[in-house]
This record gives sequence, C-alpha cells and structure tokens, in this order.
Amino acid sequence: MSKLPNILVAQSGGPTTVINSSVCGVIQTAINSGKIGKVYGAVNGILGVLKEDLFDISSESPKEIDALRRTPAAAIGSCRYKLKSDGNSADYERIIEVFKAHGIHYFFYAGGNDSMDTADKINKLAASSGYDLVCMGVPKTIDNDLACTDHCPGYGSVAKYVATCAMEAGRDTDALYTTDTCTILEVMGRNAGWIAAASGLASREAQDAPHLIYMPEVAFSIDKLVSDVKDVHSQYKKVFIVAGEGLKNDKNEYITADAGGFGKDSFGHSQLGGVAEILKDIIEREVGIKARFNKLGTNQRCAMHFASLTDVNEAYLCGQKAVEHALAGENGKMVTLVRSPGDVYECTTSLAALSDVANGEKILPADFINAQGNHITDKMRDYVRPLVQGQAPVVIGDDGLPVFARLERKLIEKVLPEYKF
Amino acid sequence: MSKLPNILVAQSGGPTTVINSSVCGVIQTAINSGKIGKVYGAVNGILGVLKEDLFDISSESPKEIDALRRTPAAAIGSCRYKLKSDGNSADYERIIEVFKAHGIHYFFYAGGNDSMDTADKINKLAASSGYDLVCMGVPKTIDNDLACTDHCPGYGSVAKYVATCAMEAGRDTDALYTTDTCTILEVMGRNAGWIAAASGLASREAQDAPHLIYMPEVAFSIDKLVSDVKDVHSQYKKVFIVAGEGLKNDKNEYITADAGGFGKDSFGHSQLGGVAEILKDIIEREVGIKARFNKLGTNQRCAMHFASLTDVNEAYLCGQKAVEHALAGENGKMVTLVRSPGDVYECTTSLAALSDVANGEKILPADFINAQGNHITDKMRDYVRPLVQGQAPVVIGDDGLPVFARLERKLIEKVLPEYKF
Repeated sequence: MSKLPNILVAQSGGPTTVINSSVCGVIQTAINSGKIGKVYGAVNGILGVLKEDLFDISSESPKEIDALRRTPAAAIGSCRYKLKSDGNSADYERIIEVFKAHGIHYFFYAGGNDSMDTADKINKLAASSGYDLVCMGVPKTIDNDLACTDHCPGYGSVAKYVATCAMEAGRDTDALYTTDTCTILEVMGRNAGWIAAASGLASREAQDAPHLIYMPEVAFSIDKLVSDVKDVHSQYKKVFIVAGEGLKNDKNEYITADAGGFGKDSFGHSQLGGVAEILKDIIEREVGIKARFNKLGTNQRCAMHFASLTDVNEAYLCGQKAVEHALAGENGKMVTLVRSPGDVYECTTSLAALSDVANGEKILPADFINAQGNHITDKMRDYVRPLVQGQAPVVIGDDGLPVFARLERKLIEKVLPEYKF
Repeated sequence: MSKLPNILVAQSGGPTTVINSSVCGVIQTAINSGKIGKVYGAVNGILGVLKEDLFDISSESPKEIDALRRTPAAAIGSCRYKLKSDGNSADYERIIEVFKAHGIHYFFYAGGNDSMDTADKINKLAASSGYDLVCMGVPKTIDNDLACTDHCPGYGSVAKYVATCAMEAGRDTDALYTTDTCTILEVMGRNAGWIAAASGLASREAQDAPHLIYMPEVAFSIDKLVSDVKDVHSQYKKVFIVAGEGLKNDKNEYITADAGGFGKDSFGHSQLGGVAEILKDIIEREVGIKARFNKLGTNQRCAMHFASLTDVNEAYLCGQKAVEHALAGENGKMVTLVRSPGDVYECTTSLAALSDVANGEKILPADFINAQGNHITDKMRDYVRPLVQGQAPVVIGDDGLPVFARLERKLIEKVLPEYKF
C-alpha cells in the first residue's frame, strides 16, 4: 500500500449535467499532483462510505475519466441518505472508521447545503477524535441556492436548457394557439426560483415565450394567475407559462404536495409535482382556454446534449481548486465562484467555510423579479446570460447518439464488519 | 399582378422540428423556378385560407426564409381545424373562392393523413368545378404513421431527442436509484409506438435505460407491468420506462383520457395525458418502489437544438420535390421517402396518391417489438438508426440561446366578404 494519503470523492443529492465534470477535476488534479495515493470513489455517495462500497477511480481508464467532463448525472453514484445525528453519532463514527481502514485523509464531497453540512460534521468529528482528515466541499446544485457563491455549477446548464425549451415550445404554442392556447412548462426549484427565472432569457421580445413566470419567491394566488392569463391572452391570443415546482401560497405552504407514501425524502423535503396540473385546471376552468403542460423532470438536470460550456468548465475548476487548496493546507471549506465586477464576465474562485454554506440559502433577490411578480428584470438577465454561454462538446457514436463515460466501479475488498443502519 | 400562377403553402396539425424546413424547400424551389408569381402563406393553415389571412412569404427577407431550416414548430402557423364535410361543402367552396381571388393555382399542404385528406378533397372539388389547381402533399408527422412512405419528416428528430433524453435521464436514475428507483418517460404517439420505440436505441447494453418500453401496439396490462418492473428491479435495482401516451387496454380503449371540457380535438381525437401518472401509481402501490415521471410534451417535437441533420435535409427535400413534381405536371400526390435496399442508408423520393395516404396508417410491425412486448428488436434499431444521424446546425445569439427565423407575416389586403364558420 502506498504511503501517500488516499483521497475519497463522493457525490450527493440530485445529479446535475456537470457534477461529473467537478469529479473529473478532483480526480485528474489529485492524480497529477503526485502527492496522493489512490483516488477512491464511494458508490452512491455517503451510503457507499457507510457500506464500505468503495472503488479505485484512479485505476479506471484515463480516457473514461476524461469522458466524465461530457457525462451527465453522477457517474460514481449519488444518494439522498441523511446521516443519523441528534446525539447519535454512529454514522459519523463509521465514516471515520472506513476512512481509517483505507488510509483516506482527504474527503471531497460534491453536493448542496445538506452535503456541506455532512462534510462539516465529519470534519469536526475527525478533528475531535484526532484523525488526520481534510474535508473539502465542491458546490453542486441546479437550484443555484447555495450561499457564499455567485452561482453554482449545474445551474448554467439547466438555465440554458430550460430557456431553450421555453423558446422552442413557445414556437409550438405560437403555431397552434387556435386550439392549444396555453402551454405550461413546469421546471424544478423547490424553494428558489432561479431555474424558472432563467427561462425569461428566452423572451427577447414581449410577444415571445415565456409570457408569465411563476417563482416560489412570490406567493401564488389563483386570482392573480387568472388575471395574468386573461391579460396575456387578450394581447397575444396565446399564453406560455413557466412555473417552478415549488410554488407556495401566501401562508408559505406548497400549493401541492404528493400525498402518497413516498411524499418526503429522507431530509424531510416534500417530493413535489403537480404544479403544472393545478395551473392547467385553473386556467381551463377559470379562463376557458385549453391548456397543456410539459414537465421536463429529471431531463432538465442531465441535458448534456445542450450543456453550457461555461458551466462545464467552471464545474471542473471547482473540483480542481478543491484539491489544490486541500493539498496547500486548507480544510473545512467549499470552493466558491466569484464574479469579477465589470461588464465583461470573468469568474474566479474563492473559499467559504462549510458551516457558512450549510446554514445559508440564496433565493432570488427582489430586484430580479418584476413588479408584477410574474416575470424577470434586466438584472436577472444580466446575471444569467454569461452562465449559459458556449456549447459543451458532445461526442456522438455510430448510432447517432451521445457517448458517455462508462466506469467499471469494481469494488475493493472490504476489511470492516458490516454496518447496520 | 404577375401573370404567373401564385402558390400557397400551409402547415397543419401538430408542429415538428423540421416542418419549416419542408416549407423552406417549397418556397426556395418555387422562387428559384422562375415559373411562379408569389408564394403565399396561410396563417394557421387552412383556417387562414378560410379567413383570407394570407401573407406574401416571397417578399420576406431571404435570410429569414433560409433560417426556416433551423427553426422549429410551424412559422406560418398551424391549426387543428377540420373542414366541414358530409354533404356540406361550404368550407371547400370557400377555399376555392380564396384561391381564385388571389390567383393561386398551386397548393402545397404539409401535414399528416388528415391534411392529405383535406388536400385531396380540395383537389377533387377544384377539378369538378373546373378550377385549375394543383394540390401536393408534403409529409409531416412526428408520429411516423403515414402510409406509403418509409418514414416521415419530423420523426428522425423526435427519435434522436427522445432516445437521448432516455439515455441522459437513465444516467440520472442510475445515480439516484437508492431513493428514486423508477423513472417513467412519457412520450407522444397516439396510435403508433414509433416514438416510444425509438428510445430503445439508447439501450446499448442490457443494463442501460430504457429497460422497458410500452407501445400502443401491445395491449397494456397492469399484471404485466408489475411483473416486468419487479423483474427489472431485481436484476438492476433500478427501472427506467418509456411509455407512449396512447397506451390501450385489451379492449382497445385508451387507459386514460382527459375527462375535461377540452378532451377532444376537432378531429375527434382524444387529448391524451396521464399515462405516466397511472404507471407511477401502479408501480408505487404494487411494487412498492418510488417512481417519478418526465413528460416532455411539446418539447419533444420542437427540439431544434438537437435535431437530426438527416431529418432536416429530408424534410427540405420533400418540399423541394413537391414543387418540382407539381411544376412538371403531377397533381394529387404526396412526396414519399424511399429507402434504398442494402446496408448503406440511402433515401430517395417518390410519389403516392393523396387518397392512399389519407386512408392509411402505419403502426409498428410486429417484428420490431420483442416477444415480451416490452422492448424493441434489432430490426427496429436498424430501421431508426440512420434517421437520427447528424447534428443540424444551431445558430446561437449573443445571449447564448438559439436564434430562429422571424417572419413578418404582414397580411395582404382581403378582397372577399368575411366567411362565417
């Protein structure tokens, strides 16, 4: 076994188009540094650590590792498992035990604020128990709601895709408005309207879709919806709406929540869906025009075929910088993206404490939303425009479809007893 | 007014990614022929003819006309209006009257079998009333269900997009299967499973999505679904399903139909939706795994950002050939696509009688569907693979998003009394 410290990289939560690009940045930078032993991946995030389901990424084909830059979703697997806490530190102790057993002294966790919280707690337990461990966060979320960073890797690509889908489906509505008068495009965003807002970039002229954008930051009202739709319909004969899945009423309750047995994930987040159906019903009943809806679902967060090159590159940079800073002695930090002042877009990186990211949430600023609460302002356009720039390379196979990385993920031998959880 | 005959081009039914490419082929070929006067467009298809809402496409900017090749949906407008028939020929007489009033002697109609029926009837009325008119059909439908042609312009692009979406969202399911175990991708296809079947191209290896494909050609059964899902789940721990919107039970009834006031279009077709929800409910209840769904909706038929170049070019060719044949004396025909025999894909065109197309419908051949009725065979793969080849050019603006054609569509002066319908 190498005497150099090993590192472990894991992914958590909902995948994105570019999280693999961040992981690629971690792996390639670590390998090239000459300062680390093996790069382990944990299958399905922290679950894989608990189960000791690890594989040696550094022994995978360098070509496949590089192909991670153009592979959507989470190639080493993700999860939504919430570690036990509140006085029970068994999960955290198990993690340290697994790290110890495999000589892992660097942990890189790509995820959102729940993941940064996890990384922070692991870090603190390691410190208090005298285990030499560096924990670094790599930002990831299509929701763009992480504190301390100008924007999040994953957002630029979903922004580009959703805006393009609104533009394209808007043309469809324009063609068929005499029967299919209203189209609703439901997009993700549980608490923040960043994704819905990005679609506003598609409306270059007033008559262009989307005509109405509903974001969770603005309390949803049936009366307002009906009045908005009537206005747009009388002006343009057609109505194209983008709605965030997390719309809430004036009591801050989701206007819909899945009532079934799978209604909440293990973090207690409600599993949303159905906003589009609710809007469709209201519009057909109260306005008397036919409405239909498109729900892109997970396809919006993995549309590698039309990803933002800016996003892919920044995601890689975040992974790279996390390793560079860790090897230079930083610990307990997440890499952040910093937008330089001025008209020309430039983005550099900085660091924020994991705990600061864990406890924050960034919703749309009030001045990014128009006065009527149903569209965006030029400030939002200026914010998002640079993030959607450039087309990430797509490698096409003989069958005409994209080719993504295939990792072998051959599990290493387990050395610890099985962990019950 | 020019003494040369004018032509009219119109689009009908659900838009596609490439119908504008066909229209571009009609316009450019007509203009370049030197044998026609003006090229009129009818705003919103045959509705625009009835209303005398016509505009002179040939006076639009040549640059914008050319940009139609990379513009999705129907730039001159479409409709779902069914002409009155059954003893009442008022609509048809009005159409001839409008054609006469504007010196229109060539009518090019891009659409599906309903449109070919319409064009055929207009043609026959013109002949019986002694009006000199040539009616030609240009095939268009994402459903790929037109008779007499190997495939239909519009299908290759939706096939490429849906297969890619299945591949990408399949990676997402692969990453998060420990909580989000099953994903259902609902795709279009009222009576034919061509679109759902195309997604099968994404499964290069057995563990790849989609694991199960449900097509309207196979009677849907809850027991079979549950058994299929359990099998796939036990084998791969995750389940990715593609389902056509038009699934029917063993009594040939749609398993869902919108019960609202907008449940049928004017051709009497049920407006479908909800197949994915039904499957999700069954799977969560009967298999006990969490399921989610993506419904691409109209976005699948206008995804110009990832269109098949083969499809775009063949669509143009159909428009071009329709004009060439019309000017050479053909009448009452639709251009068809003919696949040359042999291993190397080559496609030429031929002609079919409008009435033959109007009365036909082409569903998936039995040997394109596997014995279990839940996936495709290599015959289907061989059929669809050539159709998805090549990336159609995408022009990107300063804002990072696609730029599509903008036609002015300035209406010409009406010369007839208003028509009540």
